[in-house]
Amino acid sequence: MSKRVLVAGASGFTGALAAQIVWDHPGLELVAATSRGDAGKRLTDLHSRYRAEIELTELDLENLPEVDAAIVAYPHGAAAPTVAALRERGILVVDLSADFRLRDRETYERWYGQHGAPDLFGAGVYGLSELYRDELREATLVATPGCYPTASVLALAPLAEQGLLGEVFVSAMQGTSGYGRSSDDLVHFSNMTENAFPYKTEGHRHRPEIEQELTALGSPAPVTFVPHLVPLDQGELATCFATLAEATSADAVRGLYAERYADEPFVHVLDGPPNLRAVRATNECHVYVTVEERGRVMAFAAIDNIWKGASGQGVQNLNLMLGLDETEGLL
Amino acid sequence: MSKRVLVAGASGFTGALAAQIVWDHPGLELVAATSRGDAGKRLTDLHSRYRAEIELTELDLENLPEVDAAIVAYPHGAAAPTVAALRERGILVVDLSADFRLRDRETYERWYGQHGAPDLFGAGVYGLSELYRDELREATLVATPGCYPTASVLALAPLAEQGLLGEVFVSAMQGTSGYGRSSDDLVHFSNMTENAFPYKTEGHRHRPEIEQELTALGSPAPVTFVPHLVPLDQGELATCFATLAEATSADAVRGLYAERYADEPFVHVLDGPPNLRAVRATNECHVYVTVEERGRVMAFAAIDNIWKGASGQGVQNLNLMLGLDETEGLL
Amino acid sequence: MSKRVLVAGASGFTGALAAQIVWDHPGLELVAATSRGDAGKRLTDLHSRYRAEIELTELDLENLPEVDAAIVAYPHGAAAPTVAALRERGILVVDLSADFRLRDRETYERWYGQHGAPDLFGAGVYGLSELYRDELREATLVATPGCYPTASVLALAPLAEQGLLGEVFVSAMQGTSGYGRSSDDLVHFSNMTENAFPYKTEGHRHRPEIEQELTALGSPAPVTFVPHLVPLDQGELATCFATLAEATSADAVRGLYAERYADEPFVHVLDGPPNLRAVRATNECHVYVTVEERGRVMAFAAIDNIWKGASGQGVQNLNLMLGLDETEGLL
Amino acid sequence: MSKRVLVAGASGFTGALAAQIVWDHPGLELVAATSRGDAGKRLTDLHSRYRAEIELTELDLENLPEVDAAIVAYPHGAAAPTVAALRERGILVVDLSADFRLRDRETYERWYGQHGAPDLFGAGVYGLSELYRDELREATLVATPGCYPTASVLALAPLAEQGLLGEVFVSAMQGTSGYGRSSDDLVHFSNMTENAFPYKTEGHRHRPEIEQELTALGSPAPVTFVPHLVPLDQGELATCFATLAEATSADAVRGLYAERYADEPFVHVLDGPPNLRAVRATNECHVYVTVEERGRVMAFAAIDNIWKGASGQGVQNLNLMLGLDETEGLL
Repeated sequence: MSKRVLVAGASGFTGALAAQIVWDHPGLELVAATSRGDAGKRLTDLHSRYRAEIELTELDLENLPEVDAAIVAYPHGAAAPTVAALRERGILVVDLSADFRLRDRETYERWYGQHGAPDLFGAGVYGLSELYRDELREATLVATPGCYPTASVLALAPLAEQGLLGEVFVSAMQGTSGYGRSSDDLVHFSNMTENAFPYKTEGHRHRPEIEQELTALGSPAPVTFVPHLVPLDQGELATCFATLAEATSADAVRGLYAERYADEPFVHVLDGPPNLRAVRATNECHVYVTVEERGRVMAFAAIDNIWKGASGQGVQNLNLMLGLDETEGLL
Repeated sequence: MSKRVLVAGASGFTGALAAQIVWDHPGLELVAATSRGDAGKRLTDLHSRYRAEIELTELDLENLPEVDAAIVAYPHGAAAPTVAALRERGILVVDLSADFRLRDRETYERWYGQHGAPDLFGAGVYGLSELYRDELREATLVATPGCYPTASVLALAPLAEQGLLGEVFVSAMQGTSGYGRSSDDLVHFSNMTENAFPYKTEGHRHRPEIEQELTALGSPAPVTFVPHLVPLDQGELATCFATLAEATSADAVRGLYAERYADEPFVHVLDGPPNLRAVRATNECHVYVTVEERGRVMAFAAIDNIWKGASGQGVQNLNLMLGLDETEGLL
Repeated sequence: MSKRVLVAGASGFTGALAAQIVWDHPGLELVAATSRGDAGKRLTDLHSRYRAEIELTELDLENLPEVDAAIVAYPHGAAAPTVAALRERGILVVDLSADFRLRDRETYERWYGQHGAPDLFGAGVYGLSELYRDELREATLVATPGCYPTASVLALAPLAEQGLLGEVFVSAMQGTSGYGRSSDDLVHFSNMTENAFPYKTEGHRHRPEIEQELTALGSPAPVTFVPHLVPLDQGELATCFATLAEATSADAVRGLYAERYADEPFVHVLDGPPNLRAVRATNECHVYVTVEERGRVMAFAAIDNIWKGASGQGVQNLNLMLGLDETEGLL
Repeated sequence: MSKRVLVAGASGFTGALAAQIVWDHPGLELVAATSRGDAGKRLTDLHSRYRAEIELTELDLENLPEVDAAIVAYPHGAAAPTVAALRERGILVVDLSADFRLRDRETYERWYGQHGAPDLFGAGVYGLSELYRDELREATLVATPGCYPTASVLALAPLAEQGLLGEVFVSAMQGTSGYGRSSDDLVHFSNMTENAFPYKTEGHRHRPEIEQELTALGSPAPVTFVPHLVPLDQGELATCFATLAEATSADAVRGLYAERYADEPFVHVLDGPPNLRAVRATNECHVYVTVEERGRVMAFAAIDNIWKGASGQGVQNLNLMLGLDETEGLL
């Protein structure tokens, strides 16, 4: 029997996609998709590319439909109280915001401000399925990673796990869906076409998240990180440079990656550089690693920022939490 | 000595371009560029592609700097009162809005609502330089045509002047700069890339303007018109179909066009279909005409919608009003 | 049991998509995908967005694998001999080229030159599923319509069937996938971005195909047709103007459309203008019709030019020929 | 009196732009623009965005028109013999190829193969005007730098000159005009839209050029370099990470940049991240530098790859060689 799922915040890019994936999922039933500003509209009228036949409603926590799980696609900070309310009602929650990703309270407060549900701080399992699969099967609250950490950590994990990472530098690029629907001038087509630029050069809050996870894997490397916006819709590339803690050949490094990801359904280790079109509208992560002439590693990971970087990974986590096949509804 | 010019409403796409053209113009001095919402910002910070070294200020009609002329780039309806105030002070005005384009008051009210300066209604000279050059030299108030009428009327004028137009159908396309800076979801890069669509299918207010001008030229043809938005920034194409009032060969039609536009500095009659890149960031209008197998005319006109379709044409008009060379600052 | 299918010419945009759709189709088995120039390569290496795990091979007509049906994606003119050879071996054929679309030999020769299999000329059923469903169920050779005729005829069929069409003018636009993989300068990204243009203004060979079909439906209207290339990959819009043979209200016209397409699985009549993103990578055709103020019809049809305009429609036809559900593998 | 200039190889993206800049240049006369494959065509027919009224001719070294200088826009390897022949005739040469950039013969041969004019090897002055201005004034043969070295070296020069560079990592992105006109599948609009990818991950020949110049400036730092292609036409961004040889504050680093580039006409040090639209179709280089939390430098440089990264810089060099104002024809 299908599990009943609610998607809260379904009018934005990631929430709408989450609703659509749940709609198409053979093991899930989309019971409700909510939105404050767009209640009353059909999902497909907001996002013509989607087909889910559902009308958005307001979320009423006092009169929730009966559901097994919820995916929450609220802005950072706003998510925590709703997540807490849903958890109080015994509902499994996959949160797409940053509110439960960081394990250090001070770091959270520095980058995001006061937490909206202090009692639950740190209660989430970090939803990078490839790293925390066992914990996710038991989880009741999952913090889906940010898109940049997803790509960056998957690009570097096989080295981090061996303690091989020295210094790490990540230059990442992303399409405009990562900027959210609440558009400003910057993502007006007239400004974005034939344009590209770095942003958040003085510090992006995904950096501490990347460091947290590389440290957890065994490589407490300081990370330098800068993101760029490029003129495309969906797609993200992490280009990672790293010095090696000990000299390792390109072949040995490739061997580590091949072995580490051999059984992963969504992570594919390529034998050449990845491209964003290949992963568009998929839950895949394409990884390529090489050691260049100067002995430094270059590791690349390409994902769709709203699929594997948000909603697709969210459903991957939900599959694990609900005991479904991890890939169900995602291939 | 340079003429002193004010640009009112310089934060939007057309106003900013007007300010930049005036800035670069050897015969004009940009005395002030005003904006309500963005006063205090530098033009180049709002529009990084422009280089005019000027800070936007608020327009204060009681303390106007001394200027010879003003270009007003306000929204339709909002322009008229400011235009009237500037005219009262003896300032020559080029208005980029629709407020002084239509000569029939009822038509104006149907499409735009109450007029903001009823006493001045109809007082503007229609600023399609190629049609009204003599009047423009004497004008004190000029209504710069809409972008679609500019392209459509230039595409059809040689036939209209000969009374040769039968039925007219215009399918036009335009880039997102035509949609203005006040973005909605529609022009978010993520929605516009890989997309295109017709809009205002139940009636676009540029249709009566096209009919007005074709009628003035001698062909009171009913016009069917529909615009499309396509994924580019600057550029507009009018694809015009027309039946001929009397059978005319392709060669004869081409001869009419060649003759009509032989001395026009900005209208170039091509011997093959135009393309938008060729006119991008120029004040040119590229026209191509043919008579297809079924005996109907196909006439195409390509312009840059914010240059020849707005601000470039505005300065072309200003040149005429001020007794400067028509092409000054525009080549 | 799955039907065995061969795709001939699988390296181009339409052939590769046909192979991918067959690969994903629950009722079909992709036995071989052939290519002259790219034999030995994997499909996914040529087109990274596809996932079919198949290596392209050369087509050897003397050593064909056992197959029930073939989709032929060869250039016009080149398709006919291979189609004939496949038919001789009793294989059902869906041809994506123009070789079997036209029913008048003289017209064919004028636009395409000498036919490559004269004995089979006219033997194909025109594969616009919505018009020829019954014939398609019995067909052994199907000529899949051109992309522009698909959109244009679906946009106008409800009127044509009632004999209501007067004069017809079609302005269509299409993305660069319609230009084929054998690129010339024109479709280099640097030339196409921020560009758009009409082409084949002196006559496009899809016009006689549109006229053939409107005539067959009961409206022998002369058609004026011009296509445009716009800066996107997949997508096509037909903007059709028509005078009405007798005055008909917008409501009555809409009623005709609603009724005509009520049961069509892929044709959706919208209550507002269509957009290309909504049909991207689908087999849908979105139609909108209105009667504008001058009493003329404007009818729009949006399709994905390589799906409903080529390979998707090809599989829709194949489903009918093989007795499968018409929508199988296409939703 | 104007200096007479020949552009050899004017059909490609950089050669055509060089011809256009010379055409518009008040101090230069475009005497001839040559092309092997496109002789007989007008420049504007090949590149509709340009307006130079010149027909391409074949280069005949035995019957050269009288010229003072030549800009050679040939492929790497093919340029050297023509450069040598022009130099023999006493003509000043600005070469846009790589043939005279490298000062180490072995390095040249490793990356480019046998040199086409061994006697002239190393005879060129490296045409990064900001570094070699004095030498360029005396030069008879100038090797215009590659686009990536232009951006990367300008981004890092103020630190390199102080010996402050530790380890250097450069992630650069570029539009498709950098890929040249001889298109392959990769730059077909259908493949490039909504796509982006790293390339030459196993070693790009611009790396030794960057190392050569940083070493010459005083920082013999090993450089790790990887370029990306992104979906735009003209524009290039170098994102440079560097460790500092000694700890230096962000303010001190910014001071170095401000001072170093204070008098440069084309290099602008910004107080925030650069964007590619701001430098499109200009000879400017926009630089931004910061020191991030981990104490590493991030330095960004944005240029137009065919202007400051090729033809614009070529004319900047030519101005210096001819004793003209360095900025003439380039503002």
